[in-house]
Amino acid sequence: MLPSMTHSDLPVIEPTHHAALRARLQHRLDRKTKPVGALGRLESLAVQIGLVQGREDPVLDAPQLVVFAGDHGLAAQGVSAYPSDVTWQMVENFLAGGAAVSVLARQHGLALTVVDAGVRHEFAPRPALQVRKVAAGTADASQGPAMSADQCRAAIDAGREVVRSLPGNVILLGEMGIGNTSSAALLLSRLAALPLAQCVGRGTGLDDEGLAHKCKVLASALQANAGAKTPLEVLAALGGFEIAMMVGATLQAARERRLVIVDGFITGAAILVAQALQPAVTDYCVFAHRSSELAHSRMLDVLKVEPLMDLSMRLGEGSGAAVAWPLVASSVRLLAEMASFESAGVSDRA
Amino acid sequence: MLPSMTHSDLPVIEPTHHAALRARLQHRLDRKTKPVGALGRLESLAVQIGLVQGREDPVLDAPQLVVFAGDHGLAAQGVSAYPSDVTWQMVENFLAGGAAVSVLARQHGLALTVVDAGVRHEFAPRPALQVRKVAAGTADASQGPAMSADQCRAAIDAGREVVRSLPGNVILLGEMGIGNTSSAALLLSRLAALPLAQCVGRGTGLDDEGLAHKCKVLASALQANAGAKTPLEVLAALGGFEIAMMVGATLQAARERRLVIVDGFITGAAILVAQALQPAVTDYCVFAHRSSELAHSRMLDVLKVEPLMDLSMRLGEGSGAAVAWPLVASSVRLLAEMASFESAGVSDRA
Repeated sequence: MLPSMTHSDLPVIEPTHHAALRARLQHRLDRKTKPVGALGRLESLAVQIGLVQGREDPVLDAPQLVVFAGDHGLAAQGVSAYPSDVTWQMVENFLAGGAAVSVLARQHGLALTVVDAGVRHEFAPRPALQVRKVAAGTADASQGPAMSADQCRAAIDAGREVVRSLPGNVILLGEMGIGNTSSAALLLSRLAALPLAQCVGRGTGLDDEGLAHKCKVLASALQANAGAKTPLEVLAALGGFEIAMMVGATLQAARERRLVIVDGFITGAAILVAQALQPAVTDYCVFAHRSSELAHSRMLDVLKVEPLMDLSMRLGEGSGAAVAWPLVASSVRLLAEMASFESAGVSDRA
Repeated sequence: MLPSMTHSDLPVIEPTHHAALRARLQHRLDRKTKPVGALGRLESLAVQIGLVQGREDPVLDAPQLVVFAGDHGLAAQGVSAYPSDVTWQMVENFLAGGAAVSVLARQHGLALTVVDAGVRHEFAPRPALQVRKVAAGTADASQGPAMSADQCRAAIDAGREVVRSLPGNVILLGEMGIGNTSSAALLLSRLAALPLAQCVGRGTGLDDEGLAHKCKVLASALQANAGAKTPLEVLAALGGFEIAMMVGATLQAARERRLVIVDGFITGAAILVAQALQPAVTDYCVFAHRSSELAHSRMLDVLKVEPLMDLSMRLGEGSGAAVAWPLVASSVRLLAEMASFESAGVSDRA
């Protein structure tokens, strides 16, 4: 039995486009003491953020790095180089401050929240931990839907609730879940109608044999969920709790005109679902980096977006989003703080 | 009469390579709680910095952003979209805090020093300004050497002295000088034996006509300095005071095992000269970004280096170096602060 879902009560996301405001933002940038366009991507970022906030003088306030963690039933089929226990162990590591994303969040003054979206482990309460567990891991998608329709909806709602609970106007998305590059590959394949082979990669580091096995398992998962067609059906059938929560978080953030900084392949899969539901949602998203997970480039093409950086990272956790944060902050500061030709008494071009 | 120079008293730069230390750094990274290699360029950066400092636990101390400014006699030939006065006006803007590099330095806590390497203007003294003026602008390179051998040597020495005067173990290089993309193009063409057409770009924003004119002027400059062959002769004939000072600064920084963060096309030209003098110097350099000045990609190929970012920036001032700074800082923090599989109790791959 396939999950049957509608999305009548999901937030409606309006495009940010506003020709007059865009022109005013660009004019402000063009009067800054630099050749027109010389700040490249930092200029288009500043314009985007101005449009997201609907103002000529955008400000970034209390950025929140949120790492959604969940376990995947599919992991039992040996699709990852790491055992499932690593999901909860890494949650502990995030909270203890020893993970890459913990270090980067400290460096940049990003508030870090870890969300238990559905980890197979009971965590002791901690201030930076939100327990929103839908279940102790999804079902094995190679045998049928990973989640029921109710579970999927609950996860989306929980993601929205997480954003509502947090201050500020920027959400940086991260995730943890052994097996979740499989889930992202399945979502990409089904939603973009791409052959599975173009969507599967080595994840945390499979060898050739492991990769071949992963492909076989994922092919069964597609077959076992052949009937899942709508974005929400596909999300429930092939996604994960952490991915569904990121879909909800993204829609809620966009609804509130918060900026969303998207990490890599798995967060990208959540955006793919969100975009299928609400096409304007990517107006609110900054894509931090091109992951070295091979299919990520294809995913970015499908989303029709260009990431900010390419550092050959493939860690997840929101690490790429965190690394990109200072660039995002720079774009807004340059718009706010640079002098104009007039104010600085600098001669413009002849 | 061509300048005749030797470089017997320039610092000798030793390669940083040290197989055992490299292996120890890589091993430390490989035990961190992440798949092997998952931090991509941030890992190779951390290894590079460890090698530069000769230690397993590198630290970045008191990073200094130094903007060298100088005027170019060649500017009188109309090779730039902006008048020469913009050089000194932008120096004032750097010092007043209104330029892009001022904003970025503030954001990242980088100490900003502006060096008058040879600007056609008398500046009032300021704490952040070092006046090391060799002359009020170079001579017109389309008529003969831009500098005498003595001037070139004085500029190199002054660049070394600037680094000696500054604390810390990181130098971020920036520059300002109307006409200096011309100088950089000439240096690239002569030092790499490339046709001029492959080295010339639009600089701060020439139109097609301006670009054609620039090419013609630069061709005369190459002809007028046909006899300049050795790196120092070429630097004197076709360089600028700010470029020569950056050559000295880079050699001195490498000699002291400081890390050098290189900005774009013009700072890159200084590294090209420094590399011709001391091939190991690039071991100490991080190339911040790929500029959208077209010939920069060619220059990076000649230098055999990969930049960290590509944000379509083309501003100079050290703006690209400043934008890259947090990535450099991240690499060292990740090496220092991430937990290992053992210390965090995380299961390693099967």
